[in-house]
Amino acid sequence: MPRIVQKYGGTSVGDVERIKKVAERIKSAQDQGNQLVVVVSARAGVTNELIARAKSVCAHPSERELDQLLAIGEQETCALMAMALHGLGVDAVSYTGAQAGIFTDKVHTKAKITTINAKPIEKDLEAGRIVIVAGFQGINEEGHVTTFGRGASDLTAIALSAALQSDKCEIYTDVDGVYTADPRVVSDACKLNEISYDEMLELASSGSKVMMSRSVEFAKKYNVVFEVRSSFNYNPGTIVKEEVAYMEKVVVRGVAVDKDQAKIIVSNILDKPGSAARVFRALADANVLVDMIVQNVGRHGIANLTFTVPLGDSHRALKTLEPVLDDIGGGQVAIHEHIAKLSVVGVGMKTHSGVAATLFQALADADINIDLICTSEIKISIVIDLDRADEAARLTHKVFELDQLGG
Amino acid sequence: MPRIVQKYGGTSVGDVERIKKVAERIKSAQDQGNQLVVVVSARAGVTNELIARAKSVCAHPSERELDQLLAIGEQETCALMAMALHGLGVDAVSYTGAQAGIFTDKVHTKAKITTINAKPIEKDLEAGRIVIVAGFQGINEEGHVTTFGRGASDLTAIALSAALQSDKCEIYTDVDGVYTADPRVVSDACKLNEISYDEMLELASSGSKVMMSRSVEFAKKYNVVFEVRSSFNYNPGTIVKEEVAYMEKVVVRGVAVDKDQAKIIVSNILDKPGSAARVFRALADANVLVDMIVQNVGRHGIANLTFTVPLGDSHRALKTLEPVLDDIGGGQVAIHEHIAKLSVVGVGMKTHSGVAATLFQALADADINIDLICTSEIKISIVIDLDRADEAARLTHKVFELDQLGG
Repeated sequence: MPRIVQKYGGTSVGDVERIKKVAERIKSAQDQGNQLVVVVSARAGVTNELIARAKSVCAHPSERELDQLLAIGEQETCALMAMALHGLGVDAVSYTGAQAGIFTDKVHTKAKITTINAKPIEKDLEAGRIVIVAGFQGINEEGHVTTFGRGASDLTAIALSAALQSDKCEIYTDVDGVYTADPRVVSDACKLNEISYDEMLELASSGSKVMMSRSVEFAKKYNVVFEVRSSFNYNPGTIVKEEVAYMEKVVVRGVAVDKDQAKIIVSNILDKPGSAARVFRALADANVLVDMIVQNVGRHGIANLTFTVPLGDSHRALKTLEPVLDDIGGGQVAIHEHIAKLSVVGVGMKTHSGVAATLFQALADADINIDLICTSEIKISIVIDLDRADEAARLTHKVFELDQLGG
Repeated sequence: MPRIVQKYGGTSVGDVERIKKVAERIKSAQDQGNQLVVVVSARAGVTNELIARAKSVCAHPSERELDQLLAIGEQETCALMAMALHGLGVDAVSYTGAQAGIFTDKVHTKAKITTINAKPIEKDLEAGRIVIVAGFQGINEEGHVTTFGRGASDLTAIALSAALQSDKCEIYTDVDGVYTADPRVVSDACKLNEISYDEMLELASSGSKVMMSRSVEFAKKYNVVFEVRSSFNYNPGTIVKEEVAYMEKVVVRGVAVDKDQAKIIVSNILDKPGSAARVFRALADANVLVDMIVQNVGRHGIANLTFTVPLGDSHRALKTLEPVLDDIGGGQVAIHEHIAKLSVVGVGMKTHSGVAATLFQALADADINIDLICTSEIKISIVIDLDRADEAARLTHKVFELDQLGG
């Protein structure tokens, strides 16, 4: 009998009415002759409420207790989902991460799954029972509850799919799948039928927030093919899988714009060994995530360092850098917050040249100035003015004919 | 080092401010040189919210899933309480019932504790850590979450107190202790310093709702001495313990009034073997809890049966009985809802005579009619008119000089 792992996100199980609708979906998948394991997130908003309550009793809650607290959000929806299925006359049982045999390392709030004991679930499936599993959580060998980080119910689904060798893994969310661009910005953006893990990863890190990167990396590592689709309709979604030869025929598969970035320029520092290292070590120690980095050395051994950071971290970065500059013999720091990062992603870039030239020419023709450039094997990212970002996305979508990719 | 088990009820941990206040109380008990294990209930109202949500996804939720769902109410407060203690610089850890090693039988929603593995808690206490335990829940040998029934966080505290051989067990609630009568009705009611398990049990079953009977029975069985006291002040409470000789000097220790009762009269039934059994079997099958029962046989072998039931069950009782009467050859059923049950309780009754006479005379002098009488070794219960109940309580309190028992 085919085995499916499904995962429903927080908006898909946002209230009791949605939970009942999802229960009907699950029942119809069973009626079609499948074994089902269903991973659920907390109702939308619940995790934030719990965090707020935690912070109001203690400014810096311990991570062990945060995990113990946050795990109940998913436990609630999974018990309610089992009850909703019972209401439809379907046999179902709900499990916490611990009950589902999901073991992790000891790192609270961002634990890694070490092993899954799938025997109890296998037994339920053989008995014709649907198994509902609380997402985002496991247990460590000392019996403490651990969680995997925000948005990590996808990870539970993908890991269970690997452990149970399921035939399908379906990630239900509030969008229809992965698009060539944000449909709110680019009107002829189209949904992709398929995308490779690497493209999905680059899109995720470029501001397209369909899934947490870690879940995609895990799927890539264990070669779990999964489909991203909507729980609000019955349209087919986007299948995420290892790249196959025909995928490379498409040079660019998507455009992503990230407006949540700031550019920091550290100018007039002495170009001597260790200066850049000092700068980035200080930022890392302050937990500032640095993205695109460019360094130019000007005349007289004076260097400029430019990089981007998340907008919310920019002032922390500034404060961190000021004493460092004193240490390394001077220099100035400036923040530019009115910027956006645009990325084009496609595995076809590996074998096709001229992508960068096409992109730059299209933007130049529209008089859009490129500020920073950073490239990887399958991605080109540029920093441009925030006000021109949407226009640039539309131009890029057009010049690479992304409106032809749907189907 | 002295070891204390404390338990805080739903109003005591009703919101984050109350949780922080309770954390301070716990810290001060530790500062006085005690080891502490603290059991917490769900925030007041949370369990009812969860039940309502369950019923809105499924009219008759399975008991296994109800337990899985309801357990999170206590899990939330216990994690928040540990965080609040961390905020005060105190080392603490929160445990679910399962993590605390509380094992039960398989009976969902009213499980019995079978064994407690106290080793993990012992280890924490030795390390100077305060242990916070989610009340009302355990785990069965198959790994399913079980709960003990509403109000049963007290049971967790008393069972842990027995397992950990604690020096003290303190049940914190929103009243100052056990009173000789309801202070809202009898203005000179006074708080008792001590009361025996049996008296406490009879008071609980007579409408004085300080604690669930099962918790008191458990305490009596394992001889756990506990104190009922308020979390809203620092007044000493009432110590509940095995009766000692001096307690018998006091004839009556308390008066309780239960206005939540209805009287049912089944009249003109044939006095033949099996009639009464048929009546009460039918009520038991319909889950109607029958309390005081009186039967008179009149002339010509015609009998009347009178008994009390909870007010909310009276119409169900009526519906249940009508077909039964047809079966046993006739009779009529009537409900009287305008009644109250008044009980006087005291271990001294065992050795003192005349208690009933004193009570009946006092009420007769005030022209209060007694409708039904039912006695046990340490309790006399009567049914009177609802409108005279408060007056009767005050008279009884006075005639037995209960205002002299405080101090």
